[in-house]
Amino acid sequence: MLTVYGMKSSGNCYKVELLLEQLGRPYRWVEIDSAAGETRTPQYLAMNLNGKVPLLEVEPGRWLAESNAILCYLADGTPLWPSDPWQRAQVLQWLFFEQYSHEPYIAVARFICRWLAEDHPRRADLPRLRERGAQALAVMEQHLAERPFFAGNEYTIADIALFAYTHAAADGGFDLGGYPQICAWLDRVRAQPQFVAQTTS
Amino acid sequence: MLTVYGMKSSGNCYKVELLLEQLGRPYRWVEIDSAAGETRTPQYLAMNLNGKVPLLEVEPGRWLAESNAILCYLADGTPLWPSDPWQRAQVLQWLFFEQYSHEPYIAVARFICRWLAEDHPRRADLPRLRERGAQALAVMEQHLAERPFFAGNEYTIADIALFAYTHAAADGGFDLGGYPQICAWLDRVRAQPQFVAQTTS
Repeated sequence: MLTVYGMKSSGNCYKVELLLEQLGRPYRWVEIDSAAGETRTPQYLAMNLNGKVPLLEVEPGRWLAESNAILCYLADGTPLWPSDPWQRAQVLQWLFFEQYSHEPYIAVARFICRWLAEDHPRRADLPRLRERGAQALAVMEQHLAERPFFAGNEYTIADIALFAYTHAAADGGFDLGGYPQICAWLDRVRAQPQFVAQTTS
Repeated sequence: MLTVYGMKSSGNCYKVELLLEQLGRPYRWVEIDSAAGETRTPQYLAMNLNGKVPLLEVEPGRWLAESNAILCYLADGTPLWPSDPWQRAQVLQWLFFEQYSHEPYIAVARFICRWLAEDHPRRADLPRLRERGAQALAVMEQHLAERPFFAGNEYTIADIALFAYTHAAADGGFDLGGYPQICAWLDRVRAQPQFVAQTTS
């Protein structure tokens, strides 16, 4: 049985939950509270040196970290992670875009707005995060003008990865009203079989 | 013939150069000066909406962005990107670690130190970048204490990706003297067949 160590409020963890639900694979979820230091205990660091969630336990003693690596591993052999090399490369391109050009702005802005105090010094970062996050959204908007999903005509794990924080971008102060292609794509993702919404977003 | 749009001073571009040299694949290199705005021209944005280097042109009209996606695509079918699903997942885990927990600190500190003026306001970011970069190096040091390469016993694209900025970490003010496992691993990478050093680092 697969075990996911995750935190329901985290978009990175929600990616794994959404994929597992869509694949219909049984799994056990262990809720980890990183704000309470549960990712920094010796026990947790023995499973993931980098001290982050989500973490997939494939079997006792075999762990995989990094949300998008987990998506690739779990979706291997399914239509959500296509086997054609060029298609695979397109999916990977968007997975890396998500972690480098999107999540560090859109997820971090959401974190600051939702979980830090009104007078927290990190709020000073918000203008820069919103500027860079808007750049990522603009790239997505243009890309989606020509195709229904990120890797082309088919729904893949690239869509799952980008959905995770884009659907909750308003939490970080982004107004998706200016991005009609993104809004239509969010609806296409929500219409996929066995879609589940993030429970705490 | 493959074409790489890249910038020799960029570690992300060097990854692609190193892999192509090690694979012995012929390619054409087009030097792009992002500091001079060459990644923001309409012509360049038509190839890569996200306006970054490196960019791989597989054939006219077919482009792939994101350095680590390019590594996966080019190394597919070679021992540098193993086909065993669990090994593949390990490689991907470290590729995502590199882009999320390593490059944004170690590469950005190097950029600020080498290319921005002594009185540039972004120098105020250096203490935070060095703290987070040191965390990434500590994770690498611990991981390498138990295996010669990132995905285990064999050299893979995970090593190429992490070598790109780790070998130049001193440029950003990191002292690798405190990381003997990393130093030994850097030497193991340099000893690989057809290794080429970064020409402008």
